[in-house]
Amino acid sequence: MVLDALEHPIVLAPMAGGPSTPSLAGAVSDAGGLGFLALGYLTAEAADEQIAELRGLTDRAFGVNLFVPGQASDPDSFAPYVERLRRAGLQLGEPRFDDDGWDSKLALILDRRPAVASFTFGCPSSEVVSTLRSAGVEVWVTVTSADEARLAAERGADVLIAQGAEAGGHRASFDNRIDMPVYGLLALLQLVTAAVGLPVVATGGIATAVAVAGVLSAGAVAAQIGTAFMLAPEAGTVPALREAVASGRPTELTRAFTGRLARGIQNRFMDEYGADAPAAYPEIHNVTAPLRGAARKAGDGESFNLWAGEAHALAEALPAGELTVALAEDARR
Amino acid sequence: MVLDALEHPIVLAPMAGGPSTPSLAGAVSDAGGLGFLALGYLTAEAADEQIAELRGLTDRAFGVNLFVPGQASDPDSFAPYVERLRRAGLQLGEPRFDDDGWDSKLALILDRRPAVASFTFGCPSSEVVSTLRSAGVEVWVTVTSADEARLAAERGADVLIAQGAEAGGHRASFDNRIDMPVYGLLALLQLVTAAVGLPVVATGGIATAVAVAGVLSAGAVAAQIGTAFMLAPEAGTVPALREAVASGRPTELTRAFTGRLARGIQNRFMDEYGADAPAAYPEIHNVTAPLRGAARKAGDGESFNLWAGEAHALAEALPAGELTVALAEDARR
Repeated sequence: MVLDALEHPIVLAPMAGGPSTPSLAGAVSDAGGLGFLALGYLTAEAADEQIAELRGLTDRAFGVNLFVPGQASDPDSFAPYVERLRRAGLQLGEPRFDDDGWDSKLALILDRRPAVASFTFGCPSSEVVSTLRSAGVEVWVTVTSADEARLAAERGADVLIAQGAEAGGHRASFDNRIDMPVYGLLALLQLVTAAVGLPVVATGGIATAVAVAGVLSAGAVAAQIGTAFMLAPEAGTVPALREAVASGRPTELTRAFTGRLARGIQNRFMDEYGADAPAAYPEIHNVTAPLRGAARKAGDGESFNLWAGEAHALAEALPAGELTVALAEDARR
Repeated sequence: MVLDALEHPIVLAPMAGGPSTPSLAGAVSDAGGLGFLALGYLTAEAADEQIAELRGLTDRAFGVNLFVPGQASDPDSFAPYVERLRRAGLQLGEPRFDDDGWDSKLALILDRRPAVASFTFGCPSSEVVSTLRSAGVEVWVTVTSADEARLAAERGADVLIAQGAEAGGHRASFDNRIDMPVYGLLALLQLVTAAVGLPVVATGGIATAVAVAGVLSAGAVAAQIGTAFMLAPEAGTVPALREAVASGRPTELTRAFTGRLARGIQNRFMDEYGADAPAAYPEIHNVTAPLRGAARKAGDGESFNLWAGEAHALAEALPAGELTVALAEDARR
């Protein structure tokens, strides 16, 4: 088990779409935690380059994260929302379904063999799980309920990542239905450890050493941390997002940006469009990609997704390696 | 401090409207935890009888909980909802504002002097806080954000109860606005302990010893537990609610029953009316009281409020004293 060999029970959360970088992952692995690359939204070629860059930075183990593809949505379910955005004069893309390059990225992982592959938005099939394991790649599945934990255990996952409602960015739930239950981390940890015997990594709103100590005492084997690393110099967090993370502004779950439930710091776009947003991913993600990209470039924090967890105000602008060691050592005390 | 003298860091949550009984509170206090009476919804006379009954059962310390009155709501804000319920032919009460007998219950507390008075739905004024403290009654204030924690500390509270989103029953937030932020327990604990130096009791979804250990490691001085005691023989939980608590059915936050956000196990009434329910408390509480009372009596679990926390499926039907000791001792291990 990769976790058994770690110096510190600190796992970097993959943060697709910007904050994740090879240098951030390398710094966490080098400090004795487990770095992670987010391969979501990247082409297989770009993913391969990031893996190569990370291998140039550290000899230690790291993980990579993939999005499990879902089903295309009925156009009727999202057409009114797209029409509303269009009438507002926003710069839009096409409501295209895609599988985020699933086959080519799986092939890349089998070829490059990182220590861990983790999955979000679903559970890979038993065949995929066993192929990865045979290749020496540990399979971690992100779950948001006891039912998902049972399914991942049945399919042969090595480790579960229990993602609480507090987490920033997308909910990892296997389905994108409107009525998916949303559990807080501590409730979820109890339900998941009662349901299955696998090692569980806790994630969602863990920003400080006391929270690391808390989840370890509550039965987790490690803490997966994202937002608390977003202000690190190694992170790819854009300035407007850094500013929002350092503020005390509350977060909210929204489908406004991508058609999938995700937690972000409240801003004007969420306020204006959140109530009407359909469950249609990645169609809405692809529709809003141009306007989000432009807003990000312009530093307009009211118009793109400010993904962050509930405890973002406690994030510190420290080098990632230093933070990894501090979180683990203070948690031990 | 009352907490310092407890044998076990286990505090019973006040569960107004049924599950709270003097025998439940007495059993928890007698076992070395801190029992609590819910005085909400009771007349001062009934509250006095419960305090007397509890004093007949235990010599140990206990707490009582009060609802802090809010503001009357604009009738326009709730009239359409009431009309909808009326058209459905339901048995309704009047949309009456009341202060839940605030003055008379405060006077009762000053007279009977329980060890602790805790508050929900708001922070008592500095004058009320200091009057209670002068009478030897510790003041605990339930908070749901760092801002509320700061206000309670400013007004002189002795202890804060940090209520996470996972908690069953009403959210304790000081305001009943639609856009109040909702923090998971572990995120809230970090934010509250970073904001103020007071002792913090953690509550919300704590159903097992590992979660008790978790919140203690995360900086809480005790765990306040409600749902996990709902199946105890001493609890006043009605049969249809016992059945729902023992099931795996998911919970949801709703305003459908009372006009204030509360977590309950999903049922037909919530599904049917939740989306339209206004923020108007206690007006809607008073409107639905007759239909809820009738459904409770008839054992119709689809039509009354099945308040329960997110980890309710882990509740065990054990005597409350036994559960208190088991939670504390297993948490220590």
